Amino acid sequence: MQLKIALLGGDGIGPEVLAQSVKCLKAIEETFNHRFEFVEAPFGAIAMTGSGRPLPDETLALCQESDAILFGAIGALEYDNNPEAKVRPEQGLLRLRKELGLFASIRPIKMFPAFLENSPLKRNIVDHTDLVIFRELTGGIYFGKKTLSEDGTTASDLCTYSESEISRIAHLAFKAAKKRRKKVTLVDKANVLESSRLWRKTVTNIAQSYPDISFECLFIDNAAVQMMLNPRQFDVILTDNMFGDILSDQGSVILGSVGLLPSASVGLENAMFEPFHGSYPQAKGKNIANPVASILSSAMLLQHFGLDEEANAIVAAVHKSFVKKVVTTDVLGSSKYGTDYVGDFISENI
Amino acid sequence: MQLKIALLGGDGIGPEVLAQSVKCLKAIEETFNHRFEFVEAPFGAIAMTGSGRPLPDETLALCQESDAILFGAIGALEYDNNPEAKVRPEQGLLRLRKELGLFASIRPIKMFPAFLENSPLKRNIVDHTDLVIFRELTGGIYFGKKTLSEDGTTASDLCTYSESEISRIAHLAFKAAKKRRKKVTLVDKANVLESSRLWRKTVTNIAQSYPDISFECLFIDNAAVQMMLNPRQFDVILTDNMFGDILSDQGSVILGSVGLLPSASVGLENAMFEPFHGSYPQAKGKNIANPVASILSSAMLLQHFGLDEEANAIVAAVHKSFVKKVVTTDVLGSSKYGTDYVGDFISENI
Ligand SMILES: CC(C)[C@H](C(=O)O)[C@@H](O)C(=O)O
Ligand SMILES: CC(C)[C@H](C(=O)O)[C@@H](O)C(=O)O
Repeated sequence: MQLKIALLGGDGIGPEVLAQSVKCLKAIEETFNHRFEFVEAPFGAIAMTGSGRPLPDETLALCQESDAILFGAIGALEYDNNPEAKVRPEQGLLRLRKELGLFASIRPIKMFPAFLENSPLKRNIVDHTDLVIFRELTGGIYFGKKTLSEDGTTASDLCTYSESEISRIAHLAFKAAKKRRKKVTLVDKANVLESSRLWRKTVTNIAQSYPDISFECLFIDNAAVQMMLNPRQFDVILTDNMFGDILSDQGSVILGSVGLLPSASVGLENAMFEPFHGSYPQAKGKNIANPVASILSSAMLLQHFGLDEEANAIVAAVHKSFVKKVVTTDVLGSSKYGTDYVGDFISENI
Repeated sequence: MQLKIALLGGDGIGPEVLAQSVKCLKAIEETFNHRFEFVEAPFGAIAMTGSGRPLPDETLALCQESDAILFGAIGALEYDNNPEAKVRPEQGLLRLRKELGLFASIRPIKMFPAFLENSPLKRNIVDHTDLVIFRELTGGIYFGKKTLSEDGTTASDLCTYSESEISRIAHLAFKAAKKRRKKVTLVDKANVLESSRLWRKTVTNIAQSYPDISFECLFIDNAAVQMMLNPRQFDVILTDNMFGDILSDQGSVILGSVGLLPSASVGLENAMFEPFHGSYPQAKGKNIANPVASILSSAMLLQHFGLDEEANAIVAAVHKSFVKKVVTTDVLGSSKYGTDYVGDFISENI
């Protein structure tokens, strides 16, 4: 297969972890005889230094004409700590998601046996956890109208959802459940929010056309509790943009490190693959960032194109690194391996 | 001291757990020679059956003229599962918070040694956790304008905050930190939300007038992770209405049961005391609900009026119930004690 893959390293540890994914994809290319063309482009705070814009036009154009995008991370302390910055790196990511129509972020959380010890949660709680979060990615409060009063003393964000935005991702979630353990949990705050009530009404209707899928609803506050007390109860979780952001990061706690989890952001014509974790600027350039989330994101990329055997080869090599304890220090405090070394180990074992 | 206390049992397990608090307050009354007048009033789904309204005028009037309010829980499945209900019980709670100006919900999360085994988190992570969440309670997306398009296909909720709403609770949080471990963590989503940026700007300014308090900011997605990986890092957490709802329930995971945690909702003229947990309708009338969250809420009530010795007497009796394992089944699966029995045990040990 021939694939053109845009590489957006972004900020902080993004480029470092992305580089390890590229090693792995190159190993796949060779072993399985594919043709991957990689094109790098500036994105995030790093792009702002040059153009003033986190998503330069050329970067967007490259993404549009590519078959897939591998993305590292975005965000920088200088903007986080400056609430008055007019432009900020994250706007680039939000715009990219919107322009490419990446309406569904798919975030699997699966326990690996080698990680049972690493979890802050007790073994009997997290063992065999295998769930996937479908987070709506181009609507809700992330994209609603924002206002700041002229005197700067009142600010607002609008959370809007339409039936069609809800139903397109709901169908994806129910279809995914069909191939899994046949359960969908909608997470919302329908006892307070009008938008959540539209979610509950729309998804409850859709559930009727999937009679073999069991369907339930949870309020977000309760879901945040259940995710830690009994994550095994979940199969497919469906939720909005804001709740999905919180719940998926929280879910990473199950494995004990946010550095282990990949995600796919998909639309009708494009797909982007990225770690759950952020730019972690404190670790930049120190060769300590965990490359596994990014590497597993590249496995999701392969899967997206039907290259299951290839994806499995990456996952197997990652497992081997776990079993051999070739991992970064976030996972095993006693580990001495750097980002590069782990990336080399995994790519050489493909 | 003479206190008039309004009792709003509300829905589900609310009345059952509240009854145990009243036993304890009566024991305090006797032992310490106070005069507590208790007046019950209908509230929630239960009030709707009569008047159609979750917060009848007489209930509101009673709350306004009382010194304090003890509240159980609110919410019923028939409304949760009906996204088209025009009136729902939770509106009564939101209106009560608003009418009484209860702008700050104070939610302490403190590990009791007897609970180390009960936590789903590993002992070394949760031991000595002692934090308190200051959740803004009368603003944000809970109270912003809600719209539903005429054809019912688009819904929205507005999240608005003003500088004054933010600063009044921020000052409470910093003052609380002065008497504690001198650290405030603001939780927001300033990389995406305009309202969060107003929080960050306002609170960062206020922090400067508390030079002895260390101040930091976290994004909500990261905070949800940190709360599980290392809860001891937190002293006072300050956050908005929606994030506070999620983060505080999630924090209850530290103790292993949402049935253990009390809260105080305070304003300039009124104060209400209530458990973290919801109405848990499935358990109603079964004598299995954990009364500890409600009982500890009554201890917070006493503290609010400067009755520290009295509050400590309740806390000590609760501790004794833990040590003697006189607890409900949510805490120790093997326990055989009912709501009533635990309430009796605690009140008799005051
Ligand atoms: C960087 C940030 C804007 C982003 C989000 O909140 O969507 C990130 O947290 C994520 O989960 O992808
Ligand atoms: C019942 C519900 C409206 C309420 C809230 O979301 O505020 C509850 O979850 C709480 O935390 O007090």
